Amino acid sequence: MIDSTHLHRDLDAIRQQAPLIDNITNYVAMNFSANALLALGASPVMAHAIEEVEEMALHAGALVLNIGTIDTPWLDAMLRAGTSMRQRQGITILDPVGVGATRFRHRAAWEIIDRCHPHIIRGNASEILALADNSDSGRGVDSTASPDIAVESARQLARHTHAVVCVSGPTDYITDGIHTDTIDNGSPLQTRVTAMGCTATAVVGAFAAVNPDPYEATLHGMALMGVAGEMAAERSQGPGTMATAFLDILYNITSQQVCQRLANNEFLQQ
Amino acid sequence: MIDSTHLHRDLDAIRQQAPLIDNITNYVAMNFSANALLALGASPVMAHAIEEVEEMALHAGALVLNIGTIDTPWLDAMLRAGTSMRQRQGITILDPVGVGATRFRHRAAWEIIDRCHPHIIRGNASEILALADNSDSGRGVDSTASPDIAVESARQLARHTHAVVCVSGPTDYITDGIHTDTIDNGSPLQTRVTAMGCTATAVVGAFAAVNPDPYEATLHGMALMGVAGEMAAERSQGPGTMATAFLDILYNITSQQVCQRLANNEFLQQ
Amino acid sequence: MIDSTHLHRDLDAIRQQAPLIDNITNYVAMNFSANALLALGASPVMAHAIEEVEEMALHAGALVLNIGTIDTPWLDAMLRAGTSMRQRQGITILDPVGVGATRFRHRAAWEIIDRCHPHIIRGNASEILALADNSDSGRGVDSTASPDIAVESARQLARHTHAVVCVSGPTDYITDGIHTDTIDNGSPLQTRVTAMGCTATAVVGAFAAVNPDPYEATLHGMALMGVAGEMAAERSQGPGTMATAFLDILYNITSQQVCQRLANNEFLQQ
Repeated sequence: MIDSTHLHRDLDAIRQQAPLIDNITNYVAMNFSANALLALGASPVMAHAIEEVEEMALHAGALVLNIGTIDTPWLDAMLRAGTSMRQRQGITILDPVGVGATRFRHRAAWEIIDRCHPHIIRGNASEILALADNSDSGRGVDSTASPDIAVESARQLARHTHAVVCVSGPTDYITDGIHTDTIDNGSPLQTRVTAMGCTATAVVGAFAAVNPDPYEATLHGMALMGVAGEMAAERSQGPGTMATAFLDILYNITSQQVCQRLANNEFLQQ
Repeated sequence: MIDSTHLHRDLDAIRQQAPLIDNITNYVAMNFSANALLALGASPVMAHAIEEVEEMALHAGALVLNIGTIDTPWLDAMLRAGTSMRQRQGITILDPVGVGATRFRHRAAWEIIDRCHPHIIRGNASEILALADNSDSGRGVDSTASPDIAVESARQLARHTHAVVCVSGPTDYITDGIHTDTIDNGSPLQTRVTAMGCTATAVVGAFAAVNPDPYEATLHGMALMGVAGEMAAERSQGPGTMATAFLDILYNITSQQVCQRLANNEFLQQ
Repeated sequence: MIDSTHLHRDLDAIRQQAPLIDNITNYVAMNFSANALLALGASPVMAHAIEEVEEMALHAGALVLNIGTIDTPWLDAMLRAGTSMRQRQGITILDPVGVGATRFRHRAAWEIIDRCHPHIIRGNASEILALADNSDSGRGVDSTASPDIAVESARQLARHTHAVVCVSGPTDYITDGIHTDTIDNGSPLQTRVTAMGCTATAVVGAFAAVNPDPYEATLHGMALMGVAGEMAAERSQGPGTMATAFLDILYNITSQQVCQRLANNEFLQQ
């Protein structure tokens, strides 16, 4: 359940402090995620060289790891940055893009979980199912599985990893394995803009940089993404204008607008 | 010559089936190509790690190889993915970006052709000339050579490689070495948006994933690109609004709109 | 001080000659920088393979090196391309993105300076201070330091490196160590669009490809960026529409518009 004063405080903090969000993310998402973080008021940095990832992570308020275009050198960089964050008790967020598509991705995601202990994991239903069920039956990076089916897997994954797990989709589920909240906002048009999911993870990272509670940070980030997506879709003629409007809205949106639009601001009965 | 019922069937199939299009493409084009595929209704995936490219290609309806920012590890990944596609008789489309600019690119493109047997090759006139004439006199990735001059080279290249060859430009030529069709749509403003050519190749890939005839798939993809580009230019003030409008139009366009706009829907007299 | 006939001549030359601008730049900026160069009338190419960077640089009117997502293989490619440019007395422009954030970046930037002798270096105040003061006290890629403080460091850096140094910010400073000019145009909204700074460097590269005087080329490029940014902000609702409008304006802008808008077209009293 979202507390409007907390959301207001966090959004203000991002805009006042411009926290540095360190992203080791995929090539497709980099530009849009950086633009979304800037529009929101955060400071994105993207760096992956093994020589500098530890030092860069020292400056960061949160570290976002995204395996969308992972290869071995980048995985090594992610592990090094994530281990460094873990050692200084900084926050790491994992986006296991396409984890069900190949065994390489499955191993990469679990190696990051095992060694970096991410505080938050966000994926679509296919990805969370594949990660939790040790399955590699996915077919790339799409989101064909229903989030409703994935929510029990998400709870198990959360209990196993001690991470907050978010399953995004028409309804977003946020769970720590015990409590589960839902966000029912957003627009189907968001699925037609590439990197929208990756950008949700980056936005959650921005909230996690200003809020020490990963559960609430995830809730705030996903609520903002859903409402901003909904508002952007209303003024769009398709995915092109959608992406543009979405960035404008992140720049202008108030916490009041987010709270007024929240479709389902209630604790999920389990 | 485009058969409107076939175009209608293919566009419908893309939107119903959302075929997975596996792209090993250049860094500049990734975001825009992914957005175009999503807008059209296909499911893009971008993966290049040598450890996973074969497995990823297994899920794909078509594989798009684009050498725009090629280097040796990526070439190795392309060859592995393309060989895998060839073995299972899947379809591969090659975009030989800037092939005339350096000997490295020339070798890379021919190694892909020799080992992966792409079904379709799409480039601008300079690229097709450089590829066909074994010339490396290009000057990068622009399109200064006239498509008219390139069309005979394209026919030879098609006969030599058994690929459908498309020379894109103010007039697009599609040839299998025997038959040649032309598309006279499009807008000069498309040349001012980066990755528009690479995206044409990706869109052709989407049609090739739902149509087993590479010649017709290329014709359909290029017709859609031309008409969508024309429609986008009409509502644009420059390359920025052009790119945005183009994605909106890919999302909304009907096969009827494409067919009504086709400027030259006739078999080219040879 | 900008001579309007020179600016007019240079902008015309870019649009007439479409000079090839060779960019070895960061993943985040590639798409937007390529789009800006195309919108302006130049021909961007992005290539980084060690096997081809020398050959590619031979075709180029200017080489832009940007360390935003640098790693060792890319640094090697930059050094090879830049050395090749130096040997044939071509022009190289360096963008030392985030140079203060890590020791690796600091060493990379200085290795490029020492071996490639760039004619122009453009960064924000934090970057120029870090580069000049041999400091690594930065915190990523933001621009928290005041340009006013950085201007003396810029002069020293210019004298030490024999490069024209540009410190961009609310006021842009261009100096060769002796003369210093300022540009007071631009909009705060430009800082909310990722790669706007990297794109300024690329645009300066386009002017340097048609004007043999690096000082004047920098002045022209930064004036165009400032005025185009200002005009784009006036018709924007946020960073999304800003980026789109900016590309449209680069495509349509005249040298008369630039000159009429110049806020401070005077020689800075030192």
